[in-house]
Formats: sequence, structure tokens, C-alpha cells
Amino acid sequence: MSGIASLSDIRALLDHLPQGDDSAATAIAERQSRLTKPQGSLGRLEELVAWLGRWQARETPRLDDVSVLVFAGNHGVVARGVSAYPASVTTQMVANFERGGAAINQICKMVGASLRVIPLKLDAPTADFTQGQAMSEPEFIEAVAAGYDAVSANADLVCLGEMGIGNTTAASALAAALLGGGGARWAGRGTGLDDAGMARKREAIDLGLERHRTHRADPLAASVIFGGRELAAILGATLAARRDRIPVVLDGFVATAAAAPLARLNPSALDHAQVAHCSAEAGHRGLCAELNLRPILDLDMRLGEGSGAALSVSVLRAALACHLGMATFDEAHVDERE
Amino acid sequence: MSGIASLSDIRALLDHLPQGDDSAATAIAERQSRLTKPQGSLGRLEELVAWLGRWQARETPRLDDVSVLVFAGNHGVVARGVSAYPASVTTQMVANFERGGAAINQICKMVGASLRVIPLKLDAPTADFTQGQAMSEPEFIEAVAAGYDAVSANADLVCLGEMGIGNTTAASALAAALLGGGGARWAGRGTGLDDAGMARKREAIDLGLERHRTHRADPLAASVIFGGRELAAILGATLAARRDRIPVVLDGFVATAAAAPLARLNPSALDHAQVAHCSAEAGHRGLCAELNLRPILDLDMRLGEGSGAALSVSVLRAALACHLGMATFDEAHVDERE
Repeated sequence: MSGIASLSDIRALLDHLPQGDDSAATAIAERQSRLTKPQGSLGRLEELVAWLGRWQARETPRLDDVSVLVFAGNHGVVARGVSAYPASVTTQMVANFERGGAAINQICKMVGASLRVIPLKLDAPTADFTQGQAMSEPEFIEAVAAGYDAVSANADLVCLGEMGIGNTTAASALAAALLGGGGARWAGRGTGLDDAGMARKREAIDLGLERHRTHRADPLAASVIFGGRELAAILGATLAARRDRIPVVLDGFVATAAAAPLARLNPSALDHAQVAHCSAEAGHRGLCAELNLRPILDLDMRLGEGSGAALSVSVLRAALACHLGMATFDEAHVDERE
Repeated sequence: MSGIASLSDIRALLDHLPQGDDSAATAIAERQSRLTKPQGSLGRLEELVAWLGRWQARETPRLDDVSVLVFAGNHGVVARGVSAYPASVTTQMVANFERGGAAINQICKMVGASLRVIPLKLDAPTADFTQGQAMSEPEFIEAVAAGYDAVSANADLVCLGEMGIGNTTAASALAAALLGGGGARWAGRGTGLDDAGMARKREAIDLGLERHRTHRADPLAASVIFGGRELAAILGATLAARRDRIPVVLDGFVATAAAAPLARLNPSALDHAQVAHCSAEAGHRGLCAELNLRPILDLDMRLGEGSGAALSVSVLRAALACHLGMATFDEAHVDERE
């Protein structure tokens, strides 16, 4: 039983979001001020430790159990020629994840994270959103629940990523529905589209926005209409982590767009989330700015599969190692500022 | 015998810099193109692996021996009230490094790097550059040689950092001498200066630039006049790494300014170097832009002591892990682009 059986269940969760633990964050800031470094000189590392503690509700945060969840889905809109790769690649890459041959496998190993790959009905792509809704409401809810149920309450951090040929088109259409603008604003080259493919992608987004113009104002409806199962699962996992007060790292453009409806429904809904990296995908910088989220890394990555999220764990580990391991001014007999 | 006994020796090295290994870089790019990801989708991770291979002259780069060198020095200009901390902190922090209590200790442990701290005559600060040259030429050469000799030919990567109360003032004056502008362009808040301190820092820089205006045109002379022992050592270590074809990561503002004279004397002199992170110190972004160096990380850090350089090792390790561990399209039976 996931506890998510309808759109109303999602709305009800959003009306009663647990808040962060201010006293944990305050205790962490207080310790930071006594460590042997100028105040604030570790920059975002200091901020990230306080964020971990706030959302773990622990004065001493930990990263013992780091869970990377990668959801996969297929997309009917691929038939419109919006991806450089055939839809067959989604299933093939899931197999590659399972055999340990993908980038995400190497990065998870390096940062000490556990990887779980969750394919979502890969043999039943969503519908082409230029022709109808990508999903029915029950299909959407089933995918949200799959994400919601995938989060273990024992995790110290949940990293969310995705795989799905065509899903930057879905994410772009969703971002457009939520934030305005059309294909010209939100379409990027995805896995490496040429100019003709980009034209088809922009056109598909604009056709979809036009077709669904009367029903797409509600953020969850937009997710049903334009999204995909992996996007819905990321939305569900983001909610489940919030329920359990587990900090979340969203990977890149698709993961950020997937979680964005939550922020449109409740402006504090992503306070427990960081964006791992600024994707090279064209729309990501603007999407993060709209959501007031500052990515941790900016390395021109655009691979998806949770790769940026897993990589950002190394920054979080460094931040935590400094916080836990550094001497205070008193302990080290270092003079404080004049 | 370091082989560096005069400014002419430095100039001679700069006239005969070893170049990178194009064939190693080409072989790496060729393998990247066969790995199970869209071309270029790992962004800077792909670029960084090719850079490692080019400068290690290895088709299969490695990061078995990662050496973090932190040079420390004291600065006469501190007497002008240009730092928020007393000069005593340099020696105290060196002791803290040696006991394992600083940020750099925690980060080195996390990324698997060896740390060596090299104090340079901490009881004999450089002269106040508003009154005379910071160093005599023999003092400068001695410090350059200390850095040059600290690089082990066995290292796979050398990360360069520094500790020295007052050294952002030295670095700012050096950057100004090399690139134009004065205190207003280059002074930042360092370890946390207040507005009055900032005014003193800008004034010290401008006084120094004015005093030495006839002798500071040569980049090495500027380093003698405005720099410090730890900056000179970083210059020497950067040269030694180039001699041995070892890639270098420069930490932040001070380390970048320290190496900048090399680039002014030979535009390719820092091709084997990356800047680890964009420091929150005001002048760093502009300095990197002038030198055409793009920092790997941007986390508002401004601690120095090699902390950003060591942290960037985690990005390099991830890049290398992907390169070495990923399956090719053929191996994984994944379809290539259409």
C-alpha cells in the first residue's frame, strides 16, 4: 500500500508537508562557526551540511545509506522523430545498468551509493501527447506510486535519475505547460538531435501545448498529459522522501521538470531537494532559475541516468567530512579573527 | 639540485616546455565515442580524461598517486591591516594541517590523495611591498626551487594549494601587475575583511603598483616584487610538473595568480593545468577568464589550503572511472544513433 491512489492523495500530501528541523540546522551552523576556517569559507559545502541536517533532522548528518533510484520509461512521442536514438535503447540501457556497464554504475561505485533501476512498463510506451494525453490518470498514479514506494525510509539521501528515449521532449512540454513559453524556449538537443530533429521536437511541443491548452493549467494534469512514467515516479519519490524527511538530489533537466509540478502546487515542496548539476540541455538553467534551485555542479553533462546526482554525492561527502572531522579553533589553538 | 638557480633558468625552461601527447588524447576520444552514452554527454568529464591522458602521455590515464602540495608563507604587507586574521595563524594552521584538523586533511582522506605541507620560512615574512620588493631575487629563486623540488616524478596528478595570512593581497597585486587594473579590480575580502580593511587592502595594492611601476612589467619581476614564498613555490611546482608531464590542478585565486606569470611568458605554459574551482574571492573569475582557464567547480569556496583542488579530484576520479569501466555500444548490444 503506497497511500497514493489518486490525484487527491498527492494534493493532500502537499497540504501537509513535514518541515525541516531548524534546531539541527542551527546546531550545525554553530559548529561550523567554531571550525578552523574563516566563517563561510567553505561556501556551499557549509550550506549543504546544514541542509542535510535540516532534512535528516539530525545535528550530526550522515551519508551511510545513499540510494540512487533510476526510473525508466518509454514515450510515444518518439514516433515523431524527436530523438537521435531509437526507442529500443531504453530497454537496452536498462540491461546495461543491470550488467554494470553504464556511467551511473561507475559513479555509484566511486561515491559509495547503492543503485536501483526501476523499469516502468517499457513495452507499453506512453501515448504521443500531440494526439492525446500521454497517460490516463490511473496510469499516472500507478507510476507515481512506483516512485513513492521505491524510497526506503532508512535512506540518508535519495538521488533521483531517469532513462527514457524521448523524455527530454516530455520534460520540455511539461516545463512549458508549467512555466510558459513553447518549444523555442524549452527544447534542447537531448541526446544529440540535428537541426531537423530540433524543428520536429519544437513542433511536437507546440502541437501538444495547443492541443491540451484547456486542460493543462493544473500542474498535476500537465504531468499526466505531457510527462512519462519515469517522470511521474520521480515526482512520487520526491514526495515520499519529504514524508520521511530524507534529503533528495534531483539529477538534471528531466528530473527537475518531473518534480516541478510539486513546487507549482506548494512553493516549499522542493525545500528538501537540491539539483545536482546544471545540465547542458538547453532548458535546464532557466528551469532551475524559475524554481529558485541552484545546481551543485556545472560540468556540461547531459547524460541523465542519475549520473550528475551520483557525482554530486562526492561534494556532499566532502562537506560532511569537513564538518565532522575538522578541529575547532580552541582544539587546534588557532587564533580567531582580530 | 633543483636545476633552478636563477630567473634565467626559469625562462629557459619556459622556452622548452614539453608538449602534451596528442596520440594519447586521440585514443581516449576514440574510446569515449564507443562508450554507451551519447557523444559528448559526459561533458567536461570526457574532456578531463583526455586532458589527463594527454599530460600523463598515457592512453589509459591513472590516478593512483595523487599528490596535494600545500605551501605556506608569511607576508610583510599584513602590517598594513589587510587581513582579518593575525599573521600568527599561518604557523598555527600549518600545525593544524600536520595534526589532521583542517579541511584539507578531511578532503584528502576522502578523495584518496596524499597531503604534504611545506612551510617556507614562516618566521621570516616577505617585506611589505609598499615599502620595497617582497623578496630579493635569491629569496624568490629559493622558494621557486622549493616548489620545483617538491614534485615527485611518480605523481599522476599534482594539486597545488597555499596557506598564508595576507596572501590574497599579494596575489591581487601580482594579478594587477600582470593584467592591469588596480586594487579596485583585484582586491577581495579574503578571509573576511570588513569595509575599512578592504579600503586598506586596495590602498596597499595601489601603493605597491605605483612604487614599483618602472620594474613590474616583467612577469617574473612582478612575482618577486609582489608575491610571496608560497606563490613562488607554486610557480616552481607548476613548472616541475610540466617538465615531468604531470597534470596540475591549481586550487583557487592565490594559486592561479601564482602560476599566472608562466602564462604571461609563454601562452601554452598552463596547458597542463586546470583550475579546480572558481573562488568566491572577488578577482578569481576575472583572472580565470584572462588566462582562458575554466574552473571545474563553483561552490563559493574561499578557504585556500588546496581544499578546492583536492575536492576536484573526485570529479577527475569519476571521469576516469566512467572512461575505464563503461561498456561500449558493441559490448552492451545497445543500438547507436539513427
